[in-house]
Amino acid sequence: MNIIEGVRLGSAAAGIRYHNRDDLVVFEIAPGSATAAMFTRNRFCAAPVTVARRHLTVGQPRYLVINAGNANAGTGSAGIAVAEATCREVATLGHCLPGEVLPFSTGVIGVPLPLARLTAALPSLLREVRADGWERAARAIMTTDTVPKLVSATFEVEGARYRVTGIAKGAGMIRPDMATLLAFLATDAPLDGDETRHCLAAAVDQSFHRITVDGDTSTNDSVVLIATGRAVRRATPAGLLAATQSAVTAACMELARAIVRDAEGANKFITIEVSGGASEADCLAVAYTIAHSPLVKTALFASDPNWGRIIAAVGRAPIAELAVDRVTLRIGDVEVFRHGEPAPGYTEAAGAAAMKERDVLLRIDLGTGSAAARIWTSDLSEAYVRINAEYRT
Amino acid sequence: MNIIEGVRLGSAAAGIRYHNRDDLVVFEIAPGSATAAMFTRNRFCAAPVTVARRHLTVGQPRYLVINAGNANAGTGSAGIAVAEATCREVATLGHCLPGEVLPFSTGVIGVPLPLARLTAALPSLLREVRADGWERAARAIMTTDTVPKLVSATFEVEGARYRVTGIAKGAGMIRPDMATLLAFLATDAPLDGDETRHCLAAAVDQSFHRITVDGDTSTNDSVVLIATGRAVRRATPAGLLAATQSAVTAACMELARAIVRDAEGANKFITIEVSGGASEADCLAVAYTIAHSPLVKTALFASDPNWGRIIAAVGRAPIAELAVDRVTLRIGDVEVFRHGEPAPGYTEAAGAAAMKERDVLLRIDLGTGSAAARIWTSDLSEAYVRINAEYRT
Repeated sequence: MNIIEGVRLGSAAAGIRYHNRDDLVVFEIAPGSATAAMFTRNRFCAAPVTVARRHLTVGQPRYLVINAGNANAGTGSAGIAVAEATCREVATLGHCLPGEVLPFSTGVIGVPLPLARLTAALPSLLREVRADGWERAARAIMTTDTVPKLVSATFEVEGARYRVTGIAKGAGMIRPDMATLLAFLATDAPLDGDETRHCLAAAVDQSFHRITVDGDTSTNDSVVLIATGRAVRRATPAGLLAATQSAVTAACMELARAIVRDAEGANKFITIEVSGGASEADCLAVAYTIAHSPLVKTALFASDPNWGRIIAAVGRAPIAELAVDRVTLRIGDVEVFRHGEPAPGYTEAAGAAAMKERDVLLRIDLGTGSAAARIWTSDLSEAYVRINAEYRT
Repeated sequence: MNIIEGVRLGSAAAGIRYHNRDDLVVFEIAPGSATAAMFTRNRFCAAPVTVARRHLTVGQPRYLVINAGNANAGTGSAGIAVAEATCREVATLGHCLPGEVLPFSTGVIGVPLPLARLTAALPSLLREVRADGWERAARAIMTTDTVPKLVSATFEVEGARYRVTGIAKGAGMIRPDMATLLAFLATDAPLDGDETRHCLAAAVDQSFHRITVDGDTSTNDSVVLIATGRAVRRATPAGLLAATQSAVTAACMELARAIVRDAEGANKFITIEVSGGASEADCLAVAYTIAHSPLVKTALFASDPNWGRIIAAVGRAPIAELAVDRVTLRIGDVEVFRHGEPAPGYTEAAGAAAMKERDVLLRIDLGTGSAAARIWTSDLSEAYVRINAEYRT
């Protein structure tokens, strides 16, 4: 794990919902850093999302404050007040403006966030921030995650070495309950605000926007990239932005895949590649229709090469044109369906063998264009139902 | 059960996939009847759908032939040939043109339909058609259904009495595998072809187009309405079309609800009413986003008033405008969320009591317009996963 000069983290057990574990994290960001953030598109966004969006327009953040166990969503104006009070408390302790603090929450919806427990834990938390606090923070933001998600890498440009480190939590990609996607990355590469935003948007488009567990967009999804610029004090080399973007994208992809692997009740990691489409949007529409089909997901859970379900999902995907007589489907390397007909030579045994793997690749060629897209998803197991039916009751 | 003059049915055990049960049905339709049909919008429609669509352009059907256990879908040109051969065989036996026979199939996808077994069973089947064959036919078309679905009603116009009787199978509304929606209705009211089509379209729009189990549109969905005109031999009374449409709509709604009640693994029957929308399309978009959310469906399974999941689904529904501060949610008669905030006086106990019922009503008011829509759906249980994961393996 590479520390990022200019970023220090603290974690503490505030007892917000969980007992005997950390549930509160603070990021301290050095002055002069550039921070970009992207948020859920859910119109019922949580109070911290509303507040963080507003604070980002004020100035560069100096602190992030993150709690697990309570999403502070569906909490109305009282929830906004709690998020703002949390920022004020951090600002007082950290000697900055409340608008320089961004709040993040993940957990149960519709329950008041106990402000007193947060504020009681904050003073020691801010005193104890450490540059090597990433791993502990990765554990502190978990909800139904079973493993912490941490990524760290270095990259070089013109002989200068840079670092990128990030953490995330998920359990479902996009979940309105106890499993919001949160990701926080930092690099010591020197990017300005626009470059940081551009870099994050490009990375998210290829990573967190390419995964789904259940299609449920969370009220709290947030991804943050901090560029401290502390690595190099000399003139910015040519190609730095491209190299940073590439490294941040790779880090986001690793975190995104880790989230899918740890999806609630997931037994399999599914890659869906759609090629030959008229546009990338068409390819994504086909891929997501397959990924969200409960029947495809249960067949994957059962390792059943029930390809009719995949073809039926392709057939109902919301795209303008589909030439059914050009569609080809492969499971792994096994050609199942070719140009709209069962593939000659296909056997159930071959299909079953390809489906048995923990990692399954579904490849659909639409045969009409040159666009392509790839997404990652999980299967749908009885455990998913159990986890989501038994929680809270 | 009211027989419909002009329609006779036969059922037989052809051994297509099941043993010791009927799996093949023939409808014999008297000359002079008007028949309308609506089919799946899935582009990968099954061979019988392709053939039935084509035959409907030729002339008025004299026979319907329906098999359960094999969908004849994903079977390419060989599947088309089998569907056509089935129609030819029925036409020979029934002394009509092949184009006057409509084929229907439901069952597993991608497996060749054994033509020889169908043709072997057809001669005695056609000899033994009976006006009171509806109940036996309702059982013969079942796949993963646990109960047969039969509806029958009478209605009067200007002192004349008419009848409508129908059967359906589902198990999921719209399922690409073993649970296609098929419905066949007949009335003895005298409608012409255009009136029959209009009547069916209006009825389907309020019934089969308002239910969902898992969002998976089948390759084989088909709904048929036969109007024999045998009830009355005098001039058509005023108001007959409206009365027939009302009766057919009521019959379709009853069948549609029966399909949702018998959905795979379903424990609950959920009605979702969305009001206050800018358009009916907006209301339906919100309703279907809720109905397809695995998190909402698992909460319903658990009788957990986890309303945050419902609100989050509303927040991500694909509609142009959503005024989050005007949204109100009721579970049954319990107001949970009012104008974008937790409802004053709401208690978990009251929410839990409303969720405990077998029939749950979710009411969402968007607070921005006067449009409304209602749909029906089921919960998502471990049994659903088990049924769909264990089938075939």
